[in-house]
Amino acid sequence: MNIYRANIIYTPSPDAFRILPGGYVCVREDGIIAGVYEQLPEQYRTAEVTDYGDRLLIPAFNDMHLHAPQYRNLGLAMDLELLPWLNTYTFPEESKFKDTAYAERIYHRFVHELWMQGTMRSCVFATVHPEATRMLADFFVQAGLGAKVGIVGMNRNCPDTLRNTAEEVVRDTRALKQYLDVHGNNGLVGTIVTPRFIPSCTEDMSAALGRLAEELQLPVQSHLSENRSEIDWVQSLEPDTACYGEAYYKYGLFGQRPTLMAHCCYTDGEELRLMKRQGVYVVHCPTSNSNIASGMAPVRMFLQHGIPVVLGSDISGGHYVSMLRIIQYAVQTSKLIYAQTQGKMPFLSLSEAFYLATKAGGGFFGKVGSFEEGYEFDALLVDDSYLNYDNYTLEQRIQRYIYIGDDRDIRVRFCRGKELTEPPMD
Amino acid sequence: MNIYRANIIYTPSPDAFRILPGGYVCVREDGIIAGVYEQLPEQYRTAEVTDYGDRLLIPAFNDMHLHAPQYRNLGLAMDLELLPWLNTYTFPEESKFKDTAYAERIYHRFVHELWMQGTMRSCVFATVHPEATRMLADFFVQAGLGAKVGIVGMNRNCPDTLRNTAEEVVRDTRALKQYLDVHGNNGLVGTIVTPRFIPSCTEDMSAALGRLAEELQLPVQSHLSENRSEIDWVQSLEPDTACYGEAYYKYGLFGQRPTLMAHCCYTDGEELRLMKRQGVYVVHCPTSNSNIASGMAPVRMFLQHGIPVVLGSDISGGHYVSMLRIIQYAVQTSKLIYAQTQGKMPFLSLSEAFYLATKAGGGFFGKVGSFEEGYEFDALLVDDSYLNYDNYTLEQRIQRYIYIGDDRDIRVRFCRGKELTEPPMD
Repeated sequence: MNIYRANIIYTPSPDAFRILPGGYVCVREDGIIAGVYEQLPEQYRTAEVTDYGDRLLIPAFNDMHLHAPQYRNLGLAMDLELLPWLNTYTFPEESKFKDTAYAERIYHRFVHELWMQGTMRSCVFATVHPEATRMLADFFVQAGLGAKVGIVGMNRNCPDTLRNTAEEVVRDTRALKQYLDVHGNNGLVGTIVTPRFIPSCTEDMSAALGRLAEELQLPVQSHLSENRSEIDWVQSLEPDTACYGEAYYKYGLFGQRPTLMAHCCYTDGEELRLMKRQGVYVVHCPTSNSNIASGMAPVRMFLQHGIPVVLGSDISGGHYVSMLRIIQYAVQTSKLIYAQTQGKMPFLSLSEAFYLATKAGGGFFGKVGSFEEGYEFDALLVDDSYLNYDNYTLEQRIQRYIYIGDDRDIRVRFCRGKELTEPPMD
Repeated sequence: MNIYRANIIYTPSPDAFRILPGGYVCVREDGIIAGVYEQLPEQYRTAEVTDYGDRLLIPAFNDMHLHAPQYRNLGLAMDLELLPWLNTYTFPEESKFKDTAYAERIYHRFVHELWMQGTMRSCVFATVHPEATRMLADFFVQAGLGAKVGIVGMNRNCPDTLRNTAEEVVRDTRALKQYLDVHGNNGLVGTIVTPRFIPSCTEDMSAALGRLAEELQLPVQSHLSENRSEIDWVQSLEPDTACYGEAYYKYGLFGQRPTLMAHCCYTDGEELRLMKRQGVYVVHCPTSNSNIASGMAPVRMFLQHGIPVVLGSDISGGHYVSMLRIIQYAVQTSKLIYAQTQGKMPFLSLSEAFYLATKAGGGFFGKVGSFEEGYEFDALLVDDSYLNYDNYTLEQRIQRYIYIGDDRDIRVRFCRGKELTEPPMD
């Protein structure tokens, strides 16, 4: 049993931070939390305790939507909307990942950055290239991080250098699953069915991926209702569907298996009802939605409808890897909607957004993202002493860390109970 | 003559970055730029050159609206709208600045942070307290930073602990001006007439401050049309004015002297025409406007009308001191407006927002914020080598630095030609 003492802060529910000043978390050898306590229970009185003093211990972050091969473009290429952005900047960059030497270099940095920013789990789009994608999965395994890594399926409206066939993506996803069943660090790293989005996938490809998800019992990730021009395009490509979401649904890619749909800026009406019925997750990506001028996703409305919402950095549409920043933007975006609706749509509280980035997203991986008995111990030890120069309360300290702290403040990172060392950058 | 060689990047106009790879800037002993060159002119061939190699040399930032006494609340207290936010969090904190020992501690940290973040000039609200405000001005002088520091005038709708009279604010502002005329580092630090906002100022106080600005030839700063409830309140307090801005105008506080008005989220119609006619500056504070759920200022519309726009961090309504972040939020906010207007309102380009944070704001201080002959040399030397791992172009490097760089990357800071050392934090 490993026992850690620190100021423990987490969100078992969205409505408030649970704060244990100088509390204890007891973690079994298999990385599962045995208990969280204000006082150390009698049975552990003689056990060794790692005392982190006045530092903060918080759940690590879960990034539920991001594109590993866009890492080089972080902070670049934000002068276009989605569709020209894809063609001008993103597809050319992703095409480079046919070259495994290039992929190795960028993916090492990408995984290093997730480690640095305290993102212990993520759902990742790779590219159509199976070699580079397996390498990316290997880097996650080597780093000790959790991830669901998807080989992207795309066979229309894309450059020839970034295209696979339905047969290829099925074959390659199956092979990646078999590989990771053996080498995926006891399920920490796995794969996920990843049609890019409806405009990139013919009916044959969508149908093949839906069947594959069912056969291999894999989750699904894609994009939905991000941008107005995209939605119009989907309507013209799939004229017999009532909404964009239905175009996934009819191929088994919309909640038949656990499904993440990024963005949903314009989801309402029929699509909203279908998401709710199917239990489809909204992955809210607020930095991306502002950077490529998509709009503002109605997160409060989704929550009011009981639709599960999680958060994503969506790099490189989003420019920040740190989930601290995504939490903050989620709150801010909801406040702009609040202002525009003259208060009718309540904004997200900070604890609510923190919950989305920890326990809500973690639910996609199992019992992850909270400090409760039976949960996997994914945690960050934060030294905020330079921010705490005036006896701030612990509630204030977590607020300040989220808003103005950064990767410099993270001292120790745990994933499934294991303290992670720094992975290689080059 | 001091001659610096680096990759020089600045915005003489908003439409593009001017980039001189391995260029030279020649700075006279008085801190004024003699010239900027791609090749070193013949006359300087024998002069000593400080060679900064592959680093970036950019204009330093100008923060045109922020509240020094709210520094302790950075990252806190963002669960309320403007008016309850003022009463619940902000006025109680500002009241503490009667205590000069407290003021000394917080203001040292505040000035240190401006230095750290590369903000060489700022227009600052202090409090009603003359001793603490003079101390703040002294800290700016000691640090070598430029600032216009205002004693706040407020005599209604505020706690007794944070209230002065018209006579007091006039007397104290006059005394501060006289002090800084002598001790203000050759005009680098001065004062500015600072009515808090219409709801805080009786007619007598507003009229007295308007006369003072005229008599002492001082600029003016205040708040305008930030929040809907605030605007309604002003309308009830000043029922015979056509708009909020007119309530300043009639007291000589709206462009009769150079005037900064923060926020302007809801300015249109008569107020827009009055601002344009009077040449009043909009200080756009996008982080604050989202944090306290105010709304989105229509910056493109202001620019289309020829109204001068500059940027402000507005701490602690805003949570970031770094103007890098304010530039980024200004672009992002304009993109959300672009999305909502379905492209009718073009978003800000990155060079445009950088211009607002450098040359546009700098214009309020004289010839500041650009690398042109006759300009004061305010500059930051940036080491972005960790971001430049793949032969990015200089245009890409400045984009990445703005979006994903931070204070860690700033190696040298110049204000009016002088290289600044780190000021004390405690």
